[in-house]
Amino acid sequence: MKAIVLNLDSKEKISLTDVQESIIGPGEVRVKIKAAALNHRDEWSRQGLYPNLKSGIILGSDGAGVVSEVAKGVDTSWIGKEVIINASINWGDKQSVQGKNFEILGMPRNGTFAENVVVPVDRLYQKPDHLTWEEAAALPLAGLTAYRALTYQGQLEDDENVLITGFGGGVAQFAAQFALALGAKVSISSSSPDKIKKGLKMGASFGFDYTNPNWVDKAIEATQGGFDLIIDGAAGDSFNQLIQVCKPGGRIVFYGATRGNPGKLEARRIFWNQLKIMGSTMGSDKDFRKMIQLIEQKEIHPVIDQVFPLEKAIDAFDRMRAGEQMGKIILKP
Amino acid sequence: MKAIVLNLDSKEKISLTDVQESIIGPGEVRVKIKAAALNHRDEWSRQGLYPNLKSGIILGSDGAGVVSEVAKGVDTSWIGKEVIINASINWGDKQSVQGKNFEILGMPRNGTFAENVVVPVDRLYQKPDHLTWEEAAALPLAGLTAYRALTYQGQLEDDENVLITGFGGGVAQFAAQFALALGAKVSISSSSPDKIKKGLKMGASFGFDYTNPNWVDKAIEATQGGFDLIIDGAAGDSFNQLIQVCKPGGRIVFYGATRGNPGKLEARRIFWNQLKIMGSTMGSDKDFRKMIQLIEQKEIHPVIDQVFPLEKAIDAFDRMRAGEQMGKIILKP
Repeated sequence: MKAIVLNLDSKEKISLTDVQESIIGPGEVRVKIKAAALNHRDEWSRQGLYPNLKSGIILGSDGAGVVSEVAKGVDTSWIGKEVIINASINWGDKQSVQGKNFEILGMPRNGTFAENVVVPVDRLYQKPDHLTWEEAAALPLAGLTAYRALTYQGQLEDDENVLITGFGGGVAQFAAQFALALGAKVSISSSSPDKIKKGLKMGASFGFDYTNPNWVDKAIEATQGGFDLIIDGAAGDSFNQLIQVCKPGGRIVFYGATRGNPGKLEARRIFWNQLKIMGSTMGSDKDFRKMIQLIEQKEIHPVIDQVFPLEKAIDAFDRMRAGEQMGKIILKP
Repeated sequence: MKAIVLNLDSKEKISLTDVQESIIGPGEVRVKIKAAALNHRDEWSRQGLYPNLKSGIILGSDGAGVVSEVAKGVDTSWIGKEVIINASINWGDKQSVQGKNFEILGMPRNGTFAENVVVPVDRLYQKPDHLTWEEAAALPLAGLTAYRALTYQGQLEDDENVLITGFGGGVAQFAAQFALALGAKVSISSSSPDKIKKGLKMGASFGFDYTNPNWVDKAIEATQGGFDLIIDGAAGDSFNQLIQVCKPGGRIVFYGATRGNPGKLEARRIFWNQLKIMGSTMGSDKDFRKMIQLIEQKEIHPVIDQVFPLEKAIDAFDRMRAGEQMGKIILKP
């Protein structure tokens, strides 16, 4: 079958290759991929930023498709079902944190950028009817990260003021959509006027350009005192600005640090204002199940940026690297 | 009456002065002070580290004594009662954070380093029978801060591994005592072998000298994987070490930053390990009530360092400044 594999000796580091189909092990199923979606993780694998990368691995964490084959002992009624694959494997028993055997589909385990993928049957969730294949594929990794950050970690309550930073990224978009669906008053921030415009169209109350030095004062004024909850994926030196726009008693959840480690945090403001700063990554099976429920209940449609055929994967990866996308980038075999 | 007042023009910045007794306002009572206790806050006021300091203010947040007079309309049965004064005034309605009118007894409002003090009647709690006057006076500010950090913020569960840093300080000592009373496995850290010895004697399982560069590895080994909860009052550059000894899914609560703002935090470790970093200060009336209940139930005795007569307040303040104390420093009128 055709697949996008890591090819560290090549110029582009990835290549469309004819590979053997994976063998189905106990408790596993084969899913014929209808659509897959890119994440930063895939591009970072391409850039060699993870340990133990090996050429030949099929990349891709996000995918949706139709079950085509099941291992002996697995319920055969799965065959023909339309499914979304939860990329979060072996989370473990604790809700608070993933266990030691946790891994993410698509490195080291072969992923979804292929004609089909083999996964444990317990990673399958029925595709909600209102979603296209592209929308379904867009969901798993970024949706799960956003849902857990907002709910399990952030403990969002309706009517609260939420700030989603870096609007345009996959997690940030899902966070904005989910927060709106959960009844919050959502603000977004971005350096792109175009992305801010799209966020306001989606239903955000306020959009802030974080390159404008006045944005902190503006945000405090607009929200009459700051945000109850902030969802961030950047960290970096400007993290203290988030501490400034956070209401006393408020929470900041961050799921990434694209701008590096946070600068010297203002300790006094954190303890005097009783702020909580929480790290979050991916999510448990329970988080995933509840996310799918919310998406069905509120008929949420993930935002799709652009769809590429599998053959054009390098263009898709380059678009992700350039950070130009607004919504998820999709690959279709 | 005699009182220790801020005297910013004098060499020692505080002095024993004869002052007029405060007038009792509506809803207030007069408490004849049997014992008062020092906090860093008092020494920092002396050092001029707060805004709006004015000479003439009577310092002191912590005190216990006997009600000697009540305002018209206040239940007269209070008169003669033995009470502890909650120094946390006007916390407000929210459990998560103090309101805008919050203040701490002893600046700007006249405090407890005097023969008597006037406070709102709702600041009084009956002194537990098993406590001496010195022990009762030791409790309010540091005890409340420790109790809230462990419980409301830290959500301590029994059998969890807790690290209390900077053992020897008032809050740290209460935190260790309360955590033991709540059934946790307590470790302490200090730079003083003597203080570590005392912590182990109090019931701590392990003591770590944080000036030893191996302490991080030792702590992870001793606890078989790190701490569920860390209570810290120092922050500073070594805060990343706390992140290293924190178990995946663990929590760090800090109530002060005696070593300054935390250094560049390791963002990836925080989000991948789903850590929570929380600021905390003082506590609500509910926190205070529950703390008193715990102290009564478990017959906890606060640790007293040394008792000084009010006339020797400068010596007491100097001892606090030098950080030599082990337990609370007491003043008696």
